[in-house]
Amino acid sequence: MPHTLATHRYLTLAEGLFGPLTSKTANSAIRYLPERIVAVLDSSQAGQTVQKVLGFGGAIPVVGTIEEGLRGAPTALLVGIAPQGGQLPEAWRGVLAAAIAAGLDVVSGLHFYLGDDPELAALAERAGVQIVDLRKPPSALPVSHGLARDVEPLTVLTVGTDCNIGKMTAALQVRDALRTRGARVGFAATGQTGILIEGWGIAVDSVVADFISGAAERLVLQACHGNDIVLVEGQGSLVHPGYSGVTLGLLHGTLPDAMILCHLPSRTFPYGGNGAYSWMPLPGPPDAVRLCEAMVEPLKPSRVIAVSLNTWDLTDAQARDAIARAEDETGLPATDPVRFDPAPLVDAVLAEQARKAERREAGRGGSGG
Amino acid sequence: MPHTLATHRYLTLAEGLFGPLTSKTANSAIRYLPERIVAVLDSSQAGQTVQKVLGFGGAIPVVGTIEEGLRGAPTALLVGIAPQGGQLPEAWRGVLAAAIAAGLDVVSGLHFYLGDDPELAALAERAGVQIVDLRKPPSALPVSHGLARDVEPLTVLTVGTDCNIGKMTAALQVRDALRTRGARVGFAATGQTGILIEGWGIAVDSVVADFISGAAERLVLQACHGNDIVLVEGQGSLVHPGYSGVTLGLLHGTLPDAMILCHLPSRTFPYGGNGAYSWMPLPGPPDAVRLCEAMVEPLKPSRVIAVSLNTWDLTDAQARDAIARAEDETGLPATDPVRFDPAPLVDAVLAEQARKAERREAGRGGSGG
Repeated sequence: MPHTLATHRYLTLAEGLFGPLTSKTANSAIRYLPERIVAVLDSSQAGQTVQKVLGFGGAIPVVGTIEEGLRGAPTALLVGIAPQGGQLPEAWRGVLAAAIAAGLDVVSGLHFYLGDDPELAALAERAGVQIVDLRKPPSALPVSHGLARDVEPLTVLTVGTDCNIGKMTAALQVRDALRTRGARVGFAATGQTGILIEGWGIAVDSVVADFISGAAERLVLQACHGNDIVLVEGQGSLVHPGYSGVTLGLLHGTLPDAMILCHLPSRTFPYGGNGAYSWMPLPGPPDAVRLCEAMVEPLKPSRVIAVSLNTWDLTDAQARDAIARAEDETGLPATDPVRFDPAPLVDAVLAEQARKAERREAGRGGSGG
Repeated sequence: MPHTLATHRYLTLAEGLFGPLTSKTANSAIRYLPERIVAVLDSSQAGQTVQKVLGFGGAIPVVGTIEEGLRGAPTALLVGIAPQGGQLPEAWRGVLAAAIAAGLDVVSGLHFYLGDDPELAALAERAGVQIVDLRKPPSALPVSHGLARDVEPLTVLTVGTDCNIGKMTAALQVRDALRTRGARVGFAATGQTGILIEGWGIAVDSVVADFISGAAERLVLQACHGNDIVLVEGQGSLVHPGYSGVTLGLLHGTLPDAMILCHLPSRTFPYGGNGAYSWMPLPGPPDAVRLCEAMVEPLKPSRVIAVSLNTWDLTDAQARDAIARAEDETGLPATDPVRFDPAPLVDAVLAEQARKAERREAGRGGSGG
C-alpha cells in the first residue's frame, strides 16, 4: 500500500536554514512526529544531532547529502522550510530530483506547488512517486455563511500578536494535554505544518481570498465530528501588514467560542520580509486581546481566555517573569505550554467548555419549559 | 487593431437578472461607459429600455436574443452579472457560444474563469476571439511590505458597512468631480467592474489569500504615477462573515491617508448568501467608522472623513433625512454622490489633501532647518 501523510517516514530538507526559527515546518514535524523523521538534510550543519541544533529532537541526525539520508529508509522527502513568498529556490532542483530518483515521495509546504512544476512532475511520474503539496487547497470551497457560530463542541481559536510565534504549537500542546485528561478533541489544521502533522486540513493562506472564511467554516464543521472540543490553528495577526486578511477571514469563518492569545515576548516588530516591517511596533497582549475581541464581537461575542507565551529564547527566570507580566497585564492565566505544564491553558478551556454546556442546558430547559 | 477594455462596445448579458440590485457589473458599465453599451440581453425584459429598468441609462435597449443584440454592432459580450460564488450557469453556454461564433470577444467578471473552460476556450480559438477574465489576477504578486503608507499623493479608500452598497460608485463619482475641479486623480480598481471601467486593476478578492495586501500595495503604487490624489475602490466590510478578510487585507495594503465610509441605509443584515446572514445585524455608520479607524491605527493613523450614502431605494425626502442623520451620528459631511452633488465628499478630500501637503512641507522645513 502506498504511504500517506499518516504513515510517511521523512527525510527533511532544511538546507542552509535548519535552526530554531528558520525551519518552522521541519521543527514542528520533529516535535510532533519524531518517530517518523529519519534525518534532517542541511549540509551546513551535517554531523550535528537535531537536539544540538534545536534543543529538542534527540539523536535524529543532520546529514549533508541525500545518500546519507537514505540510510534511515525514508519514504518521502519533506520540504521543511517555507520561505516568505514561497518560491522554489533553483538550488533545490538537484536535491528534489535526486530524492525522486531514489523513489521518495515529495511532501511540500511551499506556496509554489511542486506538483505543477513540469520538470518535477515528469520526474515523479517516471519514478512512480507522488508529489504532495500541503498548501494546495480543495478546488471548490464555499463562501462562509457563519455556520460555525453555533456548533455543539466548544471551539477555541489560537490568535496572536504576530505571525510565526507558535499558534499551531500552542494548539497542539493543549490538544495533547486535553486528550490526556480524556477529552475528545478535534484539531482543525489551517497551515501546511498542521496539515502535515494532523494528516488533513486546508492552508487558509493559500485559498482564493473570497473563500478564507469558507475554508475555515468547512474545517470547523468537519473537526466537530465525534469531538467535544475543537481547537483551530490560528494564522498571522490582525495587524500584520502582509497577512492580516487571512487572520480576520479565519476568525470570522471560525467564529470561536473562545480564543487563546499567543505571544512571543522578545518579538518587537512584525515577522517577515527581511525586516521590512521595522517601522511598525507590535501590539502588546492587552491591545491584542482587545482587538481580537472587538473584531469578532459584531458577529459573535467571544473572549480571550488565556495567554500562551513562546519563551524559547529566554532563560527560565526570564520566562517566569514574562508569564507573570502577561498574567498581570491581561488578568488571564498564562504559560509557555512547551517549556512548562500547559495546565493553565487546559484548565481555561475545560472551564469554558463547562460554561458552554451549562448555557446549552439552560437554553434547552428554557425552550422546553 | 484588436479591441481592448478601453475600446470595446458591449452587448451586456444579464439574463433573467437585469435590475437595480441584481446586475451590478452591467449597471456600472451602463453608468460609466454608456456610449459603449449597445444593448442588454435579458429575455425576461426584452423590449424595455435600460432607463425603464434602472432609472438611468436612457434608450439603451433590452433585447431578448444575441441576434437582436448584434444589430448595435458590439465588439464584445460582457457578462454583466456576478452571482455569489461565481460559477458558470450551464444555461449560459449556448449564449456564450453564439456570441463567440458571431465574432464577439467575451469579457467576464465571474469567479469561474471562462478562458479556462475547455469548450469555450476551443470555440474562442477557432473563432479568433479573446476571452478576458477580469478577476484573473497577475501570477506573481508580492507580500505587502507596507510601502503604500507614505506615498506622495493623498490616498483615499472607500470602506463600508457592508459589501455591494456602492464603494466603487462612490469612488468614481468623487473621481469625476475631482477631475472637474482640475485635480489629477488616479483610480485603483480592486474589483471586476472597476477594472472593466478603468481598463486596469486587480480583483483583490480573487488573489491567493496571502497576497491580498500585496495586490493592494502594488495597485496604490501604480496609481500614484502622475497623480496628486489616488482613490482606491473598497471591497466588502470588516464584519462581513464571508468577505471580511478581503476587506482588512485591502485596508492594510492600501494604508490610506483617509477613508470615505459607504452606507446603504435600507440594508439591515449582510448582503449575499440568499439571506444566510440574517442572524447578524449590520453596524451603523458610527460603529463602522470606529472599527475602520481602530483596525488601521496600529499600522498608520487614518480617519474617515466623509460618509457616502446609497439612497437609490428612498424618496428624495427620505434620502435627505438619511443624510442628515448620518451627519448627525458621525459628525462628518455626508451625501449621496449619485443622487445629489458629490461636493461634500470632494471638499473633504481636497481639505485632507491640503492638510497632507502642509504636513509634508512642515516635515521638509523641519529637516532642513
